[in-house]
Amino acid sequence: MPQPSRRPLGVAMIGYSFMGRAHSQAWRTVSSAFDVPAVARRVIVGRDETAVAEASGRLGWEEHATDWRAVLDRDDIDIIDICTPGSLHAEIAIAALEAGKHVLCEKPLANDTAEAEAMTEAATAAAARGQIAALGFTYRRVPALALARQLVESGRLGTIRQAKAAYLQDWLADPESPMSWRLRKETAGSGALGDIASHAIDQIQHLTGQRATAVRGRLATLVPQRPGPDGPEAVTVDDAAWATLELDGGAIASVEVSRMATGAKNRLTVELYGTDGALRFDLENPNELWFLDATLPIAEQGFSRVLVTEPEHPYLEAWWPQGHVLGWENAFSNQARDLLLAIDGTAEYSPGFADGLALQKVLDAIIASDAADGRTITL
Amino acid sequence: MPQPSRRPLGVAMIGYSFMGRAHSQAWRTVSSAFDVPAVARRVIVGRDETAVAEASGRLGWEEHATDWRAVLDRDDIDIIDICTPGSLHAEIAIAALEAGKHVLCEKPLANDTAEAEAMTEAATAAAARGQIAALGFTYRRVPALALARQLVESGRLGTIRQAKAAYLQDWLADPESPMSWRLRKETAGSGALGDIASHAIDQIQHLTGQRATAVRGRLATLVPQRPGPDGPEAVTVDDAAWATLELDGGAIASVEVSRMATGAKNRLTVELYGTDGALRFDLENPNELWFLDATLPIAEQGFSRVLVTEPEHPYLEAWWPQGHVLGWENAFSNQARDLLLAIDGTAEYSPGFADGLALQKVLDAIIASDAADGRTITL
Amino acid sequence: MPQPSRRPLGVAMIGYSFMGRAHSQAWRTVSSAFDVPAVARRVIVGRDETAVAEASGRLGWEEHATDWRAVLDRDDIDIIDICTPGSLHAEIAIAALEAGKHVLCEKPLANDTAEAEAMTEAATAAAARGQIAALGFTYRRVPALALARQLVESGRLGTIRQAKAAYLQDWLADPESPMSWRLRKETAGSGALGDIASHAIDQIQHLTGQRATAVRGRLATLVPQRPGPDGPEAVTVDDAAWATLELDGGAIASVEVSRMATGAKNRLTVELYGTDGALRFDLENPNELWFLDATLPIAEQGFSRVLVTEPEHPYLEAWWPQGHVLGWENAFSNQARDLLLAIDGTAEYSPGFADGLALQKVLDAIIASDAADGRTITL
Amino acid sequence: MPQPSRRPLGVAMIGYSFMGRAHSQAWRTVSSAFDVPAVARRVIVGRDETAVAEASGRLGWEEHATDWRAVLDRDDIDIIDICTPGSLHAEIAIAALEAGKHVLCEKPLANDTAEAEAMTEAATAAAARGQIAALGFTYRRVPALALARQLVESGRLGTIRQAKAAYLQDWLADPESPMSWRLRKETAGSGALGDIASHAIDQIQHLTGQRATAVRGRLATLVPQRPGPDGPEAVTVDDAAWATLELDGGAIASVEVSRMATGAKNRLTVELYGTDGALRFDLENPNELWFLDATLPIAEQGFSRVLVTEPEHPYLEAWWPQGHVLGWENAFSNQARDLLLAIDGTAEYSPGFADGLALQKVLDAIIASDAADGRTITL
Repeated sequence: MPQPSRRPLGVAMIGYSFMGRAHSQAWRTVSSAFDVPAVARRVIVGRDETAVAEASGRLGWEEHATDWRAVLDRDDIDIIDICTPGSLHAEIAIAALEAGKHVLCEKPLANDTAEAEAMTEAATAAAARGQIAALGFTYRRVPALALARQLVESGRLGTIRQAKAAYLQDWLADPESPMSWRLRKETAGSGALGDIASHAIDQIQHLTGQRATAVRGRLATLVPQRPGPDGPEAVTVDDAAWATLELDGGAIASVEVSRMATGAKNRLTVELYGTDGALRFDLENPNELWFLDATLPIAEQGFSRVLVTEPEHPYLEAWWPQGHVLGWENAFSNQARDLLLAIDGTAEYSPGFADGLALQKVLDAIIASDAADGRTITL
Repeated sequence: MPQPSRRPLGVAMIGYSFMGRAHSQAWRTVSSAFDVPAVARRVIVGRDETAVAEASGRLGWEEHATDWRAVLDRDDIDIIDICTPGSLHAEIAIAALEAGKHVLCEKPLANDTAEAEAMTEAATAAAARGQIAALGFTYRRVPALALARQLVESGRLGTIRQAKAAYLQDWLADPESPMSWRLRKETAGSGALGDIASHAIDQIQHLTGQRATAVRGRLATLVPQRPGPDGPEAVTVDDAAWATLELDGGAIASVEVSRMATGAKNRLTVELYGTDGALRFDLENPNELWFLDATLPIAEQGFSRVLVTEPEHPYLEAWWPQGHVLGWENAFSNQARDLLLAIDGTAEYSPGFADGLALQKVLDAIIASDAADGRTITL
Repeated sequence: MPQPSRRPLGVAMIGYSFMGRAHSQAWRTVSSAFDVPAVARRVIVGRDETAVAEASGRLGWEEHATDWRAVLDRDDIDIIDICTPGSLHAEIAIAALEAGKHVLCEKPLANDTAEAEAMTEAATAAAARGQIAALGFTYRRVPALALARQLVESGRLGTIRQAKAAYLQDWLADPESPMSWRLRKETAGSGALGDIASHAIDQIQHLTGQRATAVRGRLATLVPQRPGPDGPEAVTVDDAAWATLELDGGAIASVEVSRMATGAKNRLTVELYGTDGALRFDLENPNELWFLDATLPIAEQGFSRVLVTEPEHPYLEAWWPQGHVLGWENAFSNQARDLLLAIDGTAEYSPGFADGLALQKVLDAIIASDAADGRTITL
Repeated sequence: MPQPSRRPLGVAMIGYSFMGRAHSQAWRTVSSAFDVPAVARRVIVGRDETAVAEASGRLGWEEHATDWRAVLDRDDIDIIDICTPGSLHAEIAIAALEAGKHVLCEKPLANDTAEAEAMTEAATAAAARGQIAALGFTYRRVPALALARQLVESGRLGTIRQAKAAYLQDWLADPESPMSWRLRKETAGSGALGDIASHAIDQIQHLTGQRATAVRGRLATLVPQRPGPDGPEAVTVDDAAWATLELDGGAIASVEVSRMATGAKNRLTVELYGTDGALRFDLENPNELWFLDATLPIAEQGFSRVLVTEPEHPYLEAWWPQGHVLGWENAFSNQARDLLLAIDGTAEYSPGFADGLALQKVLDAIIASDAADGRTITL
């Protein structure tokens, strides 16, 4: 059984780069912001001892280690937080669940469906033992998007008929930007699709409460060749993708993603259009939710810029006074809170591994549709 | 009596430059857009015969003339539309009213209070004879600002406590921009104050429905010298001004204007803060009114961007379908409509000359306050 | 030969509803704003004599008529301006061109490709005789979009790789909004696709200077049934559509349109992403162009809100001072100007009928793709 | 000498409510984000033992204490971080400096000028001993405002002629919001003026690099009475204030603040207008700086929305990838970094106590001006 209530929950984090930094900040912060079970940042794990030792000191962990398997045997560890590249998720997560630990796994769940299925099976078995297997689509915990979900759930949009999500970045806009493992299919699985379309599609399904039943997709590699260590090398993943999704509630959703959209920095936009209202969101202004209430008198209707910083808003009571905005990183603390409450048995956590598997199947279907010249693939 | 209902109302316009062009477009358009008495663009008047003849053809008037006094004698003229520099307003308007004509006079009413008082007296006398003396603060007819007035009037803002208006332009930002009559006190009366603070203050008083009872002001000439025909010459009017106004409803309003605000093109902004709601407007996006309803649940509150293009909005039924925005010039057609309906006896028109006089006194008080080192001047 | 230079160009307009009002305003205004050959609004033509007579008076035409064929015989008519429903375009335009008239035809060029081909043939023959056959994709004359074209043409965006256009409206969002001829395939041809996707695609091709070579599309009827005169009736056209276009310059463009997007009033948005810069536009704020210059130092890069109201901007010298914005209707005057200059032989006019035909083929390909389960259709 | 380089710098924080939480988060985070000397959160001090003990655990301090004087004697304490109400600043800061500690004092420096002068004297003496006396106008460390300062400093705005700052909040908009110590002059010193106008004026002086030499001011108490424990009670501080400032570089600045601006949550806006450019900022969107470069071709000029999240931007290299925005709290970590580098001798820190004293004199002058009916008070 993972946590005796008398001592802090011990966390081990595998991985220490970008996501490792963000998760460390969350574990460092969560207990100050929220009323949650105490946590101890026991150990950070990485293969390169020098680097992980440096990270351990900088990021504030008690110890570092290089062998994640050994960490799974420790009794003082309750939570395994997986921040490695996606190709390692399955092996670590399954072993951790089998070792009786709670698991938080960064998205994407896995690089392919077979792995995702195995992970989901392990999660189901672990759930029966009271363990949590949590997936980190952190943007669900951006307060404005959590508020969006509340508004939809409480019927303020009526029936949603159309959704529109895009995730535009520009960090590959420069064609001289060099080749990397992220641009090779064998290491990365896919490109913009798995990395950022996954977020867009998760938001569509989560916010609407509708599941994709069929898709049509297109992938493109707009810069097909980049400087490699030995001269020009072929980019073998997509750097932009488009899809339309039929949802089981009758809505149609569009998705567009790109790593080449000059001037777009981290522009995840979501728009929902329903019979009674509409919503718009842009991750570059993450504290704003734009809500149109179509039941108001027409002369007063318009998209309202709700500054999501009131105590009445999701997660906000724990943070700062109204108007004092949150940053990107705070959503990771919100996520840690929700996980701790789920472990404590006082709340549900989603998404779980099964959601990650379902999303993986949507991504696979988009790839399959593109391979079939754009034809509909039914899920 | 000015207009027999059986023939079109004859219009004579005095002046043919910027405002003359705008008014011509309005007279040309008003009957197509609105159900109003017919008008005939009889004669355009200017001192320079060549120029006014050219303008007449271009702007679509039946005739041109150089002597405005002769025009006042014509039986086929019902409306005198005064678009001259302000120093000519009083003489023409008074003569026109005495000749039994309706008058539309561009703002500012006059260059000084004595003239404004004489004009107001003439207007009062003429009103008793059924004549209209209309003043052209055209921005009152921008639909979004007309909607703002409706919302305040119907109590949607509760008690207004604070107002904030600014009118920022940058056409004098370049210190090498040459000297002109507008920058000399003897010809222009005042600078930014009379030209654009007049709009800001008219909006504050009109929208709040509260009158200024006391003011404190500051004037500045940020570029005190400019290239003249014979070398550097002193600028003798203000190019920026600031004021605070105590209003008779208990609110305090601030005003800031400038012709030196680099990058501000025609940025008249108005903000109203009341107990039950708030409004924001920016003339550079004139089709938008931002309305916050503070009586909604706090979690859904925000400034709504109302795109003021619905048939339910002021003036809009006459124009284009929803979302098809209006431009700056349309407000002049709206103004012409309101004047024609007032002449027809089916609606009231404001502002009248008395409003222009009252505004002139506020401007004078700001000048007096600045001259008294900023002290309060009571109206 | 159409126009002797010694008398005004005579215009006959066929049709008098929404587009007729907009075109009338343009013909009434163009000579005041621009240095162009004089025009006379000779005759307005419609089938319902009472209605067209009323429109003639209101919109300021010299005469009205009910037989457009008779009008083609008149020597005092130089330009036939076709504002009828699309199903009449071909017959009138071909006859007018054969009668030696210049033609301005509202978009869409025709309801099907066969008609569009016949019209293009007639236009080609007429061009050899010095006649203009102009197509009215008026949004090309919105100054901000004309500036966008200039920026692309002068290379400020480098190579464009990705384009994204959407046209969202909500006038059919209410499912109780009744059946009409626009919702029946036999009268309307298509729904949102022909009506508004045509604008989005014209902008993509025009602004990028790239032509679609292959498309994938999806159509949907989100509200499949509406109240008809005799009870519920099936909607037989699309009310939303999506497509991706491969362009001959290597870019990929996405298109999304809807008449069900609650809260979107007339939201034509266009985004262009190139190697050296990017552009964004929204028709609900038509005086703004957002331009990002990716060659500036990174610390200063951002999308600039260019308020397109300077004399240096396309068409603007003829209008109002900086910051005094234009409305939707002004683009029609700009269009009339360009047509008159083309007739005068001092400028080229585009789009012509061949462009309309090419666009029709793109629309047809989208329909064909949807019918083929989303497969690529090559043009 | 405060800090031996061989052990972490020990911090003692006095106070544990709103600012205490923000500073705790900064001390907890600074070493993870930046390369700075290590810090140890040794002790948190408060008068209420139960409350401070709870805060100590929640906010992550090693110990708590109730007697700040005893803490000054400890050798393991190098930095005294003062987060108490302003009335205690002087006593604690002076004692801490005399005890050889570095001091970080929250704004405002003190409640009156006499205290501020004594503190400045103590700081000057301490500086000679190598101690830092830092004042916490944290918004100087919001990256967008730090970038603004860089742009001004490098001449990108040319000569600044006009500045405009406002700080609008609405937490007192409800007249039934009860009386508190913040609304009584004897405890709070002043109202909106000291609390938020201080920020606006600090930004004006800091960003422009110009000092106020003369002011005119107005204070108002828009809700003069509020529910107290024993019935209605008079509010004895201002809840809104206005001022104009003459700056020593020739510019004029306006300031407007309010706690009654319905719908404004934390809206500190700053606008700077110079001969070569302009800047705009809004604290409700703190990751954006709007910059207009007036030296670009006029047709391309506009305010650019710079998303201040690039490694090239101030402080950003330490945080997240581009487009991953910061929140309000991150500026406190940036501030802690700058303080630690100053203690380390590798950077300068400003503002110091002398800046706080100078600002206090500006605030006093505004009060004096209002008391003198708005007349100019020279500094």
